[in-house]
Amino acid sequence: MKKTALQRVVVVGTGLIGTSVALALRERGVDVWLADRDPQAARMAAELGAGSVLPATELPAGAVPGGRADVAVLAVPPSAVALELRRAQDRALARCYTDVASVKELPLAAARDLGCDLKSYVPGHPLSGRERSGPAAARADLFVGRPWVLCPHPDGTDDNLLLVTKLAQMCGAQTVSVTVAEHDQWVALVSHAPHLVAAAMAARLERAPDGALALAGQGLRDVTRIAASGSEMWLQILAANAGPVSAVLRSVADDLAAAAAVLDDLAAGDEQASKGLASLLERGIDGVGRIPGKHGGPARGFAPVQVVIPDRPGELARLFQATGEAGINIEDLSIEHSPGLPVGVAELWVRPDAVGPLCDALAANGWPVRR
Amino acid sequence: MKKTALQRVVVVGTGLIGTSVALALRERGVDVWLADRDPQAARMAAELGAGSVLPATELPAGAVPGGRADVAVLAVPPSAVALELRRAQDRALARCYTDVASVKELPLAAARDLGCDLKSYVPGHPLSGRERSGPAAARADLFVGRPWVLCPHPDGTDDNLLLVTKLAQMCGAQTVSVTVAEHDQWVALVSHAPHLVAAAMAARLERAPDGALALAGQGLRDVTRIAASGSEMWLQILAANAGPVSAVLRSVADDLAAAAAVLDDLAAGDEQASKGLASLLERGIDGVGRIPGKHGGPARGFAPVQVVIPDRPGELARLFQATGEAGINIEDLSIEHSPGLPVGVAELWVRPDAVGPLCDALAANGWPVRR
Repeated sequence: MKKTALQRVVVVGTGLIGTSVALALRERGVDVWLADRDPQAARMAAELGAGSVLPATELPAGAVPGGRADVAVLAVPPSAVALELRRAQDRALARCYTDVASVKELPLAAARDLGCDLKSYVPGHPLSGRERSGPAAARADLFVGRPWVLCPHPDGTDDNLLLVTKLAQMCGAQTVSVTVAEHDQWVALVSHAPHLVAAAMAARLERAPDGALALAGQGLRDVTRIAASGSEMWLQILAANAGPVSAVLRSVADDLAAAAAVLDDLAAGDEQASKGLASLLERGIDGVGRIPGKHGGPARGFAPVQVVIPDRPGELARLFQATGEAGINIEDLSIEHSPGLPVGVAELWVRPDAVGPLCDALAANGWPVRR
Repeated sequence: MKKTALQRVVVVGTGLIGTSVALALRERGVDVWLADRDPQAARMAAELGAGSVLPATELPAGAVPGGRADVAVLAVPPSAVALELRRAQDRALARCYTDVASVKELPLAAARDLGCDLKSYVPGHPLSGRERSGPAAARADLFVGRPWVLCPHPDGTDDNLLLVTKLAQMCGAQTVSVTVAEHDQWVALVSHAPHLVAAAMAARLERAPDGALALAGQGLRDVTRIAASGSEMWLQILAANAGPVSAVLRSVADDLAAAAAVLDDLAAGDEQASKGLASLLERGIDGVGRIPGKHGGPARGFAPVQVVIPDRPGELARLFQATGEAGINIEDLSIEHSPGLPVGVAELWVRPDAVGPLCDALAANGWPVRR
């Protein structure tokens, strides 16, 4: 058998991530077995088409019907990874093992401490999630186009790395290869610290007047949204990545304390003070701009063209007929219209060099455009 | 004429808020005149159906065709409100004036300093906004169900308060009556401080490794999203509400510094330390829970249909050809695609009763659809 053949997979832990992996692999024809400490969760995953429930959770070696699986995916919390790895290896569930935990140094160190076979372990972390959890929230396309971090380590083998890379790619993900230390610093910055920042802002609302809360808009909701997630899981994650998260938080706290001092100076009439605030706002704009892809709107590197369109069937077809005939690729678009108004505004995002030709093509077809 | 009759309105400043007010009032049959320092902005607002462009911006008293308007809405930045009020009153544009600025103590004080007629001025603040600005982003339903703060003050009159209350209600908003001081404290908490918190988090990304940014998910995007808005306007707002914003920021900074200290203790092996962190997370959950209404969520009243589309010119035309021919109106849509992937997913939002026909029409034309 080819070493990178991926035909049989065991998923241990059929929550959101485990079940989604299983669904994605099933779509690619992989045989999947499912196990969970909660038999109901495993059954629900199986009912969703994610695979077959592994006959029993405490079987001896050779538990997977037909022999060892190619890969076992341990989709369990960070602190449980090493133990599940040890159990799975003791049962010889698969020839290669990976996990999906959102910290990576700790599980690798714990696996080493537990005497696991590190050669067959490829630490992994698919960067996908939803607000909802559990198998019912799973989707086969959860990983499509998303990064999936794999962490090669000195005790691992290239063959196993290739095998898990293949698994991630079959789920539609784009694999990223970094060390466990780098991974943990990166997610501290883009995921773990933001969670605590959101929590610290949300904590201010705990005793706020009802009247103030009634004024809350989408901005406050967005800033604080992730702070609503279960504190137990987050406590585990944060504790498991304490050093890197602390470093980020400290610099956020420093910036906010400095901003408060500037505001106090402004309130005292020192108008020169506002420079410090302007710089923080501009660094914020630059920072948001560096996040790749969409932020509920403009994609970086593209330019918008606004077109007024009548709000009736067929108008969009006419619009895209014109852009298609002009050979212009629309990278992104959004449509705004107020219910009841006879017109809307389409915002078309194109490469900057296509703005001129697009405006010309649309104007030639009678569309009111605005760059 | 009845004192609360509202038939003629001038909107000074046809950005997002001004044009949206105009659109909403037009839907209720109000005559609306539009003025803006940027004549293109006023013209675009007029083209969108927001009203008629006021003949010239520098006309003497009696500038509004047919005589003074009932209300003039000054939809200009906070620091410009008092000056525009003075100009509008000098031109006798209307018998009553209101503004939409997001701070309220400063414009009232500045109007007093400029010798404006305070009797005819009702300070106002509709709590609606979008990331995008300008007339093209305007919507008639921007204020529906949203709070619209009005600030009675000792120099004002009940008649004028009633008139502006009526205007806000005709826009679909729910009016809230508070003092200017209370208003400024409340928005510091739910809007201004969150903006700086988002900026301080986003500022960390300015020099982050590309690899880290590639791992960014929806959580980071949400926490930092509002920090992308223009810094000039925000600098003005924050400076105009310095004291209350500073107080909120200081407490967020303190909580984050304390969390960093706890994490350092945890990293040093003191497991007892985690209690402090658990408490911050729990206060965050409580705080988010106190925000009324929905947290996020797609367009109201519409249902999504997902379609996989090849990422090349002409495909959207083909897609909308099919929807147009089926007579289905697309209410909103978004396109997701990961750079480098040959396909994207378009999410079409339609009336719930159109979901079935839309799926049938698309499937009949060979599109892979998913409800």
